[in-house]
Amino acid sequence: MLTSIYMIAITAEAMSGALAAGRRNMDLFGVALIAFLTALGGGTVRDILLGNFPVTWTQHPRYIYMTIAGGLMTIVIARFMRHLHQLFLVLDAIGLVAFTVIGCNVALKLGYDTVVVVMSGITTGIFGGILRDIMCNRTPQVLRHELYASVSLVVALLYLALLSHGVTENITLLAAFSVGLLLRMAAIHWKVSLPVFRYSQDRWD
Amino acid sequence: MLTSIYMIAITAEAMSGALAAGRRNMDLFGVALIAFLTALGGGTVRDILLGNFPVTWTQHPRYIYMTIAGGLMTIVIARFMRHLHQLFLVLDAIGLVAFTVIGCNVALKLGYDTVVVVMSGITTGIFGGILRDIMCNRTPQVLRHELYASVSLVVALLYLALLSHGVTENITLLAAFSVGLLLRMAAIHWKVSLPVFRYSQDRWD
Amino acid sequence: MLTSIYMIAITAEAMSGALAAGRRNMDLFGVALIAFLTALGGGTVRDILLGNFPVTWTQHPRYIYMTIAGGLMTIVIARFMRHLHQLFLVLDAIGLVAFTVIGCNVALKLGYDTVVVVMSGITTGIFGGILRDIMCNRTPQVLRHELYASVSLVVALLYLALLSHGVTENITLLAAFSVGLLLRMAAIHWKVSLPVFRYSQDRWD
Repeated sequence: MLTSIYMIAITAEAMSGALAAGRRNMDLFGVALIAFLTALGGGTVRDILLGNFPVTWTQHPRYIYMTIAGGLMTIVIARFMRHLHQLFLVLDAIGLVAFTVIGCNVALKLGYDTVVVVMSGITTGIFGGILRDIMCNRTPQVLRHELYASVSLVVALLYLALLSHGVTENITLLAAFSVGLLLRMAAIHWKVSLPVFRYSQDRWD
Repeated sequence: MLTSIYMIAITAEAMSGALAAGRRNMDLFGVALIAFLTALGGGTVRDILLGNFPVTWTQHPRYIYMTIAGGLMTIVIARFMRHLHQLFLVLDAIGLVAFTVIGCNVALKLGYDTVVVVMSGITTGIFGGILRDIMCNRTPQVLRHELYASVSLVVALLYLALLSHGVTENITLLAAFSVGLLLRMAAIHWKVSLPVFRYSQDRWD
Repeated sequence: MLTSIYMIAITAEAMSGALAAGRRNMDLFGVALIAFLTALGGGTVRDILLGNFPVTWTQHPRYIYMTIAGGLMTIVIARFMRHLHQLFLVLDAIGLVAFTVIGCNVALKLGYDTVVVVMSGITTGIFGGILRDIMCNRTPQVLRHELYASVSLVVALLYLALLSHGVTENITLLAAFSVGLLLRMAAIHWKVSLPVFRYSQDRWD
């Protein structure tokens, strides 16, 4: 089940990457590369940080094809994005939760400390979007907009708390997805975001 | 032979990095660092992604010295760049092909799947330039201009196709360089580029 | 002793990251993430480049907590930064020297070549600041302002020269910190910087 959700998730993330590339007028190659990076970059950064070699996608070529196909397909359906907006936000939120849970699981299996497990989940959840924004030369959006990275944090903490209390994997997953999706949708609907830190002194230090 | 070409290649890439640093008014240290990153960054990203430790340049100090020297030397000859423009484009194209072939070979030796071998070649070919542009705070040029990343893709595919059909290493290399250089030079001369994806909706998702 | 200094160093770097995040109006999560990346990113890049897994902070959860706490605390004391400016510059300089020395030691223990040891020290010293600036979408300041990266280079060379001449660890550390701090403070006071390379031709290559 988590694998099917993962497929949906990487396709949604690949589309988000392709749209960002389109805003920078990139060529087909750029669109494919940014789609790939957005979808699989979070997991790649996680694998490298945890020393988890070989990196996941190098062992699953179909993930590579899916993200590139998702990116290029986006060019065709971009004109309908306005109508697909709601659906897209839901898919993106599903991706965020799925990536977070998978990231926690990878670090758990490698025996890392709990705080590292949480960071592994968050890294998997948000770093694809961060790499996308760095490649498109803009300040990472996930650190500024409605609750996004925070949803990943809540999902990771909830997931670990339930597992450590002996709740079954299935119920834990159900809870993680329910809470994560609700929280993200509520944040978008009511424009909830974390408090922002504004600082404007000139000197860089 | 490939080693001599590699030397030329990293020097040309180091120069391209130094010029980009100069456009941002960086100091001597910045010029040397960007030169190093542009020349050896693609191979470094490849080695990390493939779990190929120790990273190549850590075992070959002279590559480090060459890129730093190439970067600093560029400061002196920058005033003549207008006259060296054609030569520089040829050297840069040679670098692109050489990096791509070397990147494919590294992944081949490690036994990765064909699509990963192709991505290893492309990563080695273009990621130095991407890191250069990220460090200089601009959108990666290789994803927007005349065929560049695509040349790397064509070279990687051709190289693997010929090898898998039992063509000798020397002829394969000759073919890769001929096709790669011709394609790149033609793209520059006739301003050929891949179709561009333009998207301008406001929201980031 | 070096451990206590390291604690001060990562807190100072975390604060510098938080201030940069504040200039981009990031939310609390963004502030915590940039603080973490600025403080521990240099060592992380070093560990990955040297194949030194597991990455240091994954084995020391308290460093993670300290940087996040340092980042969030900065939001509270930001209004006093004008008065703390001098103190902050000293702490930042201490961090630069401490990171450089630690980076050299890690590479030394792994048996790398001298030039790689120097680069390991510099990477640890300056890459946190580079990651901070990339995440905040600006050209890395450490490559443009008063002597900063160069101080890291001088400290690394001095440290290795003294060690190789059999000077004791304690005296070597004392010399590294004295020279590094003096050099950095002098550079700030008299606005000393390396010569800058200016280049303004239009084409990117």
